[in-house]
Amino acid sequence: MAKINKNYLNVGESYLFSDIAKRVNDFIKNNPDKKVIKMGIGDVTRPLVNSVIDAIKAAADDQSKTETFHGYGPEQGYLFLREKIADYYKSYGVELDADEIFVSDGAKSDVANITDIFSNDNTIIIPNPVYPVYLDSNLMLGRRIKLIDGNEQNGFLPLPYESLEGDIIYLCSPNNPTGAVYTKDQLKKWVDYALKNDAVILFDAAYESFIKDEELPRSIYLVEGAEKCCIEFCSLSKTAGFTGTRCGYTVVPKALEREGMNLNKMWLRRQSTKFNGVSYVVQKAAEAVFTEEGQKQIKENIAYYSQNAKLIADTFKSLSIWFTGGINSPYIWLKCPNGMSSWEFFDYLLNEAAVVGTPGSGFGKCGEGYFRLTAFNTKENTMEAMQRIVNLFNK
Amino acid sequence: MAKINKNYLNVGESYLFSDIAKRVNDFIKNNPDKKVIKMGIGDVTRPLVNSVIDAIKAAADDQSKTETFHGYGPEQGYLFLREKIADYYKSYGVELDADEIFVSDGAKSDVANITDIFSNDNTIIIPNPVYPVYLDSNLMLGRRIKLIDGNEQNGFLPLPYESLEGDIIYLCSPNNPTGAVYTKDQLKKWVDYALKNDAVILFDAAYESFIKDEELPRSIYLVEGAEKCCIEFCSLSKTAGFTGTRCGYTVVPKALEREGMNLNKMWLRRQSTKFNGVSYVVQKAAEAVFTEEGQKQIKENIAYYSQNAKLIADTFKSLSIWFTGGINSPYIWLKCPNGMSSWEFFDYLLNEAAVVGTPGSGFGKCGEGYFRLTAFNTKENTMEAMQRIVNLFNK
Repeated sequence: MAKINKNYLNVGESYLFSDIAKRVNDFIKNNPDKKVIKMGIGDVTRPLVNSVIDAIKAAADDQSKTETFHGYGPEQGYLFLREKIADYYKSYGVELDADEIFVSDGAKSDVANITDIFSNDNTIIIPNPVYPVYLDSNLMLGRRIKLIDGNEQNGFLPLPYESLEGDIIYLCSPNNPTGAVYTKDQLKKWVDYALKNDAVILFDAAYESFIKDEELPRSIYLVEGAEKCCIEFCSLSKTAGFTGTRCGYTVVPKALEREGMNLNKMWLRRQSTKFNGVSYVVQKAAEAVFTEEGQKQIKENIAYYSQNAKLIADTFKSLSIWFTGGINSPYIWLKCPNGMSSWEFFDYLLNEAAVVGTPGSGFGKCGEGYFRLTAFNTKENTMEAMQRIVNLFNK
Repeated sequence: MAKINKNYLNVGESYLFSDIAKRVNDFIKNNPDKKVIKMGIGDVTRPLVNSVIDAIKAAADDQSKTETFHGYGPEQGYLFLREKIADYYKSYGVELDADEIFVSDGAKSDVANITDIFSNDNTIIIPNPVYPVYLDSNLMLGRRIKLIDGNEQNGFLPLPYESLEGDIIYLCSPNNPTGAVYTKDQLKKWVDYALKNDAVILFDAAYESFIKDEELPRSIYLVEGAEKCCIEFCSLSKTAGFTGTRCGYTVVPKALEREGMNLNKMWLRRQSTKFNGVSYVVQKAAEAVFTEEGQKQIKENIAYYSQNAKLIADTFKSLSIWFTGGINSPYIWLKCPNGMSSWEFFDYLLNEAAVVGTPGSGFGKCGEGYFRLTAFNTKENTMEAMQRIVNLFNK
């Protein structure tokens, strides 16, 4: 008799975004004359840049002719792309070999699939609140989970403490959903903890391109010793608007070993066995992101979103409402005013200002009483939403 | 201390294709004047058809404008594509709901990742020889494996027998590497076995489009009761030359339940948690495959490869050498003449005819003494290779 993986029973269904949609739809039905502004969007909204579009079309032409047709590619990704990614890392001070870089269809797949190379007999440290994939992919394997709390005191950037016990640590910086960014000194505390305990840090850097402050690390490999204890995930989703185009990359250093096994070789083996590489067309699109022209174009989009983020951050600053993010991140994570719960504030903002955000409680217990706004709407809508919020709070 | 998945120690590295490359390179170095013909190619060689190229470019245009830009899509795949796939199944007599179809980046990923929804406490039945992913992805989880033998007697189409015990069964038809195709009656034996034992069949139909004989089943769902015990994997890799473009689809029927859990819902949960959908551009390319014009164009390519396969099959028939495949498959699996081992025949064919194939022993113990040739070279090269083989054997 085929036996199913019963750990799936422990993974709760998330109704967060369907609950939001339901309340918004009800509001629109009852208030057909009001313009609702969605500030909860977790997806990019600006189109792919011209360099990328041109590269997709050129790659399509390659695929139309026998002489330039590409069939199966290397599971790890084409060298032309991995070398470009290595150069990109070099531009902010990280030296990597192209063989340490694995191209994938996105950070979500890799963050979840990396669980494959580790034993189920590990304690997994996961900050709370956080991107749900870390928790769910480990619950599906029945692994022991140790949640560590983010809160106002630690600025939603939990650090290791003396009695903390765990083997694998997920960190996300700039953080989704809080927008908080670890400093190099803070990351060093985590790296030192991992080195001391032979733990492995799984570092999600999907939002690195939003970091403007040059003192803040865009990669954990800027911290000494990280190549001996860290795997890093990155993505073109937010960097270059690839949420629907699907390309990310994961760094597994050759120096990373545990129990006598080289994790770079293990991940190569995993990918070669269970994955067949990313579409040639998409890899050519990704390559275009890393050209001089491509970088110029994507930085215009990032600047556009960053201006929206600053607008939101400035608004809550002026209202003296506590928040994280907004400076080096497209997310603003604010404390609901007047002791409101996340959902209370959601309803208040929707009913009084026709502005939609995301209740922080949807990202974990420690998110209760907080609220996420994002920078992915248009400048005009962001300005209007902030004006409505200022009017509401000054009423 | 982070503990690694020690099952990886049990997955042997495959040197099959690097060994082949080494011997071929040595031969070329020592015989610079000889034209080597590669008949071991497991990849398509003809370019993408025009309908697909046009669709990629049109999708790129969509992605270049805010109004038509696509960000995150549904993890299960866009409905526009799933409905087309359902229509395709309908064309050969299988009724599916679009919600039973999951679009992915290829059959390899799904065949390997489907392991996630099952317990490690299962015995896995795998035919031998076979596509290595079934075995390796289960070895990586430490599952019990029961290999069942393919051989000349059963035409490399093993069937269930009274004492056979197992919970999950991998079947591949048309088979890689043997090209053998199960009849409907034979598949019914497997379905009956699975229903009787509450087992689940994982049916790899990646080569279904090569079936010309209308009596042979292109889907296991043509067998009564299969929707209660089978998951089917399919791919555009060989159907439409998508080996480098990456798109496949998996069918998990809503009627498939085990231990009170619905496997369709489990797979949806797996994909929603650990996967972020296939590139919009690639899904539009895949959609074009299923249009009337797209089908016409891809069928020309399949006919081209099928003619090559027939040419190879006819050659070995005329030489009275036993083989499977070649009629409803791009693969020909032949018995090495004069009792040669797979590698002996490899060297013989390379040295005497400058023709390269794949030693059957590379696909498992039961492949020893057999040899695979493929139909993916050009018509001209295939003809020349067959002429050389005829000359060699008639010497």
